Amino acid sequence: MSSAQERLATIAEVARPGDGTAGAVRIIDQTQLPHRLVTVDLRTAGDAAHAISDMLVRGAPLIGATAAYGMALGIRAASDEAAVTNLVSMLAATRPTAVNLRWALDRMARAVLGVAEAMREAAAWDMAAEIAAEDAAINRGIGEAGLPILRALAEANGPRPLNILTHCNAGRLATVEWGTATAPIYLAHQAGMAVHVWVDETRPRNQGAALTAWELAEAGVPHTVIVDNAGGHLMRHGMVDLVIVGTDRTAANGDVCNKIGTYLKALAAHDNNVPFYVALPSPTIDFQLQSGDGITLEERSAEEVTHISGKAPDGSVTRVQLTPDGSAAANYAFDVTPARLVTGLITERGVANASVEGIKRLFPVESAAAA
Amino acid sequence: MSSAQERLATIAEVARPGDGTAGAVRIIDQTQLPHRLVTVDLRTAGDAAHAISDMLVRGAPLIGATAAYGMALGIRAASDEAAVTNLVSMLAATRPTAVNLRWALDRMARAVLGVAEAMREAAAWDMAAEIAAEDAAINRGIGEAGLPILRALAEANGPRPLNILTHCNAGRLATVEWGTATAPIYLAHQAGMAVHVWVDETRPRNQGAALTAWELAEAGVPHTVIVDNAGGHLMRHGMVDLVIVGTDRTAANGDVCNKIGTYLKALAAHDNNVPFYVALPSPTIDFQLQSGDGITLEERSAEEVTHISGKAPDGSVTRVQLTPDGSAAANYAFDVTPARLVTGLITERGVANASVEGIKRLFPVESAAAA
Repeated sequence: MSSAQERLATIAEVARPGDGTAGAVRIIDQTQLPHRLVTVDLRTAGDAAHAISDMLVRGAPLIGATAAYGMALGIRAASDEAAVTNLVSMLAATRPTAVNLRWALDRMARAVLGVAEAMREAAAWDMAAEIAAEDAAINRGIGEAGLPILRALAEANGPRPLNILTHCNAGRLATVEWGTATAPIYLAHQAGMAVHVWVDETRPRNQGAALTAWELAEAGVPHTVIVDNAGGHLMRHGMVDLVIVGTDRTAANGDVCNKIGTYLKALAAHDNNVPFYVALPSPTIDFQLQSGDGITLEERSAEEVTHISGKAPDGSVTRVQLTPDGSAAANYAFDVTPARLVTGLITERGVANASVEGIKRLFPVESAAAA
Repeated sequence: MSSAQERLATIAEVARPGDGTAGAVRIIDQTQLPHRLVTVDLRTAGDAAHAISDMLVRGAPLIGATAAYGMALGIRAASDEAAVTNLVSMLAATRPTAVNLRWALDRMARAVLGVAEAMREAAAWDMAAEIAAEDAAINRGIGEAGLPILRALAEANGPRPLNILTHCNAGRLATVEWGTATAPIYLAHQAGMAVHVWVDETRPRNQGAALTAWELAEAGVPHTVIVDNAGGHLMRHGMVDLVIVGTDRTAANGDVCNKIGTYLKALAAHDNNVPFYVALPSPTIDFQLQSGDGITLEERSAEEVTHISGKAPDGSVTRVQLTPDGSAAANYAFDVTPARLVTGLITERGVANASVEGIKRLFPVESAAAA
């Protein structure tokens, strides 16, 4: 969004190389949020790789854009075919399961190797900028597709603020700009609509309390952090007008894979007739995947459950243990929300019903290609 | 349970007064769990009041028993009618909304004032012991009523451990012994059944991660701590055989008021055909309350959401801030689970359907008295 961009972009070119100067790309070190706002200037491909693997940046679109700029930064040192291939391998290894990362790197390699060696650095910067701009445009498109839903609910609502519940961070910090679930919210706020966001803290990694709350505060959007347990109670008492969440992967039948706990909120929304929307860039629809049952779900380190970081009384960021020494913990990172609980899929191309037919109607070419 | 009692009781007489010695009652300082096991000997009514108001003890039955012993400890100083009345007022003020506390104190006052002044100290100790023993007997009764449910599910299950999910702490640490939701689990474990408990950490106060995990570890019951977001995913994947939770208050129609987040687990259980049981001592049934809609739900300090305590790397228990400085938080402490989602109410008198008819069948006299 323009105002936030004037403050601090999620990722931005600081300098393009030229006239003997090297390029640099500025990111926010998200591991320090919400307690410290630290920016890092990436000057080499190694810097970019470190930013991805150490999770200074996270969120599939932002990882893709960071890797693309990492290629651009790396090509200054050597731009022959072997060097480009090595760069791709090195950057791809930072988060081996990130599909978007691989896609961005392949696209960079094609753009770079398609031109003469002298042109490769400029081609790399151009393509990285294009990948970033495309992501921003897709998310703005999601915002524009979702805005009429918010407007219609707000009109039915009367003068009180529209209460939106979200889970995890599907915000601008996960993308280049706008975010996915947050894009309609930012557009509504900029249009002067009264909105208020219930922010699920989103244990175990607390991306809601740490990142979504921070970016909403920075953008001036009224919001309240709640524990993940609270949403059902709020919905039973008419305190939530709609839910919007993001997704990592959507199946061809509209089943949605997202951060653990999303399914519980979808059940509560369904039980209380609260609309439950999922916002997503259409490239995350897996047209080949018939249902969410086929998704292998990641189990992560138990330490994310047993320990948590926060700001200690002395201002330092400290990690504390929550559980007894003798107790095991398990950490399932994602769950699948069945399509029957999803009111609609908000994409940059419009809103689709969460069903085979709904997705086919909005994406006829992609659906036919996968059939 | 006998083995745990040999280790460390939730509350126990250390000494009764006599032959010039004063009495003492030992409690566990639950604010230090799970990182430090600290016991405190209460020697005066003021000690007991402090233990309740500073939440060294919590859980309605344990608060009641602690207050009862507080009366016994206080009567040594003065036992005339005015002194007894003052003791009741002082102890009742420690947690003004605790119904069980008031009930225990009224019962103590009647027992004490019903005998001659010289007999009052002995009467007070006897009645405090009776209140504690009754609570232990009620919870053992809940365990015996619930055990056949676990046995039947385990038999259907074959050799693999029976997976039970619980929320918050409805364990022995909330009561004098056995707990409510945990009573059938402890009896099953003692009977040699293979059980495994999924422990919801239960944000914001983390009674699951801190207390339930600790007491299950102490009793040797296999368990795994999970975030509150995980239960739905586990149920969708057949990893939960039943849910058992406690309750603060049950309406005459079977609606159940319990720790925030209980409703979300009940929805997930219902969606996946997982039995969802609520364990409760029958005195917590409010036969006058027609449905859960009539329950006013407590909103607590936002600091319980924005901050959390844990063990720092140096071993000290440290409180850290989780949210940005500029973000508000809200803290709804309880929710209501509608009776339609409850498979059964496990009471010391047997298992009731969660319905007006089911409760009437098991409690005909109480139901008729309230009508």
